[in-house]
Amino acid sequence: MNPEPDYSAAYVIVRTGGGQEGHGLAFTVGRGNEIAVAAVESLAPLVTGRPVAEVLGDLGGVSRRLTADSQLRWLGPEKGVIHMAAGAVLNALWDLRARRAGKPLWLLLSELTPEEIVDVVDFRYLEDALTREDALAILRAAEPGRAERRARLLAEGYPAYTTTPGWLGYTDDKLARLAEEAVADGFRQIKLKVGADLSEDVRRVRLAREVVGPDVRIAVDANQAWNVGQAITWLAPLAEFDLYWIEEPTSPDDVLGHAAIRHRVAPIKVATGEHAHNRVMFKQFLQAGAIDILQLDAARVGGVNENIAILLLAAKFGTPVCPHAGGVGLCEMVQHLAMFDYVAVSGTAEDRVIEYIDHLHEHFTDPVVIRDGRYVAPARPGGGAEMRPASRAEYAYPNGPQWAANTVAGAAGAV
Amino acid sequence: MNPEPDYSAAYVIVRTGGGQEGHGLAFTVGRGNEIAVAAVESLAPLVTGRPVAEVLGDLGGVSRRLTADSQLRWLGPEKGVIHMAAGAVLNALWDLRARRAGKPLWLLLSELTPEEIVDVVDFRYLEDALTREDALAILRAAEPGRAERRARLLAEGYPAYTTTPGWLGYTDDKLARLAEEAVADGFRQIKLKVGADLSEDVRRVRLAREVVGPDVRIAVDANQAWNVGQAITWLAPLAEFDLYWIEEPTSPDDVLGHAAIRHRVAPIKVATGEHAHNRVMFKQFLQAGAIDILQLDAARVGGVNENIAILLLAAKFGTPVCPHAGGVGLCEMVQHLAMFDYVAVSGTAEDRVIEYIDHLHEHFTDPVVIRDGRYVAPARPGGGAEMRPASRAEYAYPNGPQWAANTVAGAAGAV
Repeated sequence: MNPEPDYSAAYVIVRTGGGQEGHGLAFTVGRGNEIAVAAVESLAPLVTGRPVAEVLGDLGGVSRRLTADSQLRWLGPEKGVIHMAAGAVLNALWDLRARRAGKPLWLLLSELTPEEIVDVVDFRYLEDALTREDALAILRAAEPGRAERRARLLAEGYPAYTTTPGWLGYTDDKLARLAEEAVADGFRQIKLKVGADLSEDVRRVRLAREVVGPDVRIAVDANQAWNVGQAITWLAPLAEFDLYWIEEPTSPDDVLGHAAIRHRVAPIKVATGEHAHNRVMFKQFLQAGAIDILQLDAARVGGVNENIAILLLAAKFGTPVCPHAGGVGLCEMVQHLAMFDYVAVSGTAEDRVIEYIDHLHEHFTDPVVIRDGRYVAPARPGGGAEMRPASRAEYAYPNGPQWAANTVAGAAGAV
Repeated sequence: MNPEPDYSAAYVIVRTGGGQEGHGLAFTVGRGNEIAVAAVESLAPLVTGRPVAEVLGDLGGVSRRLTADSQLRWLGPEKGVIHMAAGAVLNALWDLRARRAGKPLWLLLSELTPEEIVDVVDFRYLEDALTREDALAILRAAEPGRAERRARLLAEGYPAYTTTPGWLGYTDDKLARLAEEAVADGFRQIKLKVGADLSEDVRRVRLAREVVGPDVRIAVDANQAWNVGQAITWLAPLAEFDLYWIEEPTSPDDVLGHAAIRHRVAPIKVATGEHAHNRVMFKQFLQAGAIDILQLDAARVGGVNENIAILLLAAKFGTPVCPHAGGVGLCEMVQHLAMFDYVAVSGTAEDRVIEYIDHLHEHFTDPVVIRDGRYVAPARPGGGAEMRPASRAEYAYPNGPQWAANTVAGAAGAV
């Protein structure tokens, strides 16, 4: 489904008059990045020129202003480019707030009171599943254990799984070697891409199972390749290899389709969410019993604010959140949400794992650290999205040296 | 929800080397129009420079190329700005094809064979509800009656309803006068906006019912104002006035919410669709029994192609399609879809009405004609989206004379 990604981002910096910065980004896979940039530019007037304290002190209000502007919302509402851009701006503001507080975002969020947390959430359209009072009850129940879990998180990190061995097109040798390395590195779950060729998938999953043994979880990811019937048919011959979850079996919009698939492929769990566009979709995935695993994404929905709503929904329904990552900066950003969830929302990391892909971390000022198959809790202030200035300069489109060098060879592919 | 619309459009013209043109547009309500323009510009390379006959002879393939580009689809997939832009380009191509055939679009579509029709539809993700074979059966069943219905359509037109009397903020006198005029003009249904103030709504709906009498249908439109519980509570005191439908009671993404509302407010029918972003959402609205009335929109989804899929889904489920219109050019465009549906898909206009608002038609080269509360079938070649060159010049952003004149008085509102 994504055969030739050209990892890109609409990169947002909010600057105070005093020169402080907050960084956020909307991840894209190449063409179309310029549309996300246009959307960020259209949103900018809604936040620029206002007092910093007023903006950072009311990120719930700012979130509402960005997502409910009476004209811009027509382009969604709350979906697609305009919503991804709103999320990038909000993430940049949260990054700025965390930097000013001198804390990593996960810690900043984990030290807010339950009332401060619900104040940044837009409960509109959620109340049939989650009210403000429900959310407060969840957060208050988690309060007594915050300190203990924070200490444990700092000591032990947060569990991860790796997609590194599982890309389509790898030779069997490479798949086996990378799967073996993953287990040696401490990962207790790996993920393989599937959906291009069934007999290849059977062979690859069998091989992976032989290499990792019976105790390491194997998830598979179809990247929306199937309709409902195809998903059920395709998974049947793979079931014998004890799959843990099937990810994105069909259209990310198809709540009822996921529910039908889940009913038929159990005990294989159904996971989705990286393309679910807002909290109303997640609400329905949960209400319909359509998913076993909720995969939020740091750069698809309306930023930290909406992801807090999604974490609260998942906690209400008792559904584990296993965030999507990879791309550029998604690991760096999403770890903060999972760690906040552990400390202050769901209060558990059981059956929770953050995706990890060993790719492009060198471009970030605070790259993720993986130790024994676990994310080490970041200590530096901020939300994780800041790219190194040298990387930004090198890859800036269209005038960065990398683009200038490549344009000679292939102008048609240079967007 | 849309308090200050500044009716706008990302306007698309496809031009052949021989100078023929096809026109399409993505309707917006002001700010953000520039993002839709950016999206159209990003899609343009996917169709420009190719042989005209190849493009127009394979609009199914072109549709797939525009909506499934492996990089651009990340911005949706198939939703929001990128999808609206794809729809505008596809509508422009259909307009060109109809002009070259010398036929209005509804007639061009109605003369295609069932096989030619299904060839332009993307059945991906629909097959659990509608297969290609299902669609062929629907279209073949309607074939014998095509000629008779076409003759009747040309003689009698297609039923309309009017939203002209029902805007919030009108005085009672104005509401009563416009409602009276609507009935005198032959409309058998009017629509009122609701959701700002319940006691006002009760008063306005009562007044409207007194004026139009018991036999004219009154629909109400909440423009997404409520959550599920609020919708049910708000509608209870309005039920005594025999409402025909409640439109957009809640989030356009909330299939399950609409189903819950429908279950509780019957016999008031539930209608939605103007913001439903693609065929997968419509599939679910139908599968979940969430709507009584399906309101497709000409400029929200992936153009004529996806709207044909939606018409076929509605026919499969036996659900009446009552298209959304208004805005700029929506009446002009959507009438073609409803008339095609009547002649060649559902084969009936019973309980079907196209929305009509008496606004901005003077800017179009083939403005809709309403006679005795019915749309007169357009006779001129094309799909209806062409704006008069003088209007385009006058209102072009940012250099048209209208913008230049207004910029002096209010630059901040000039986007």
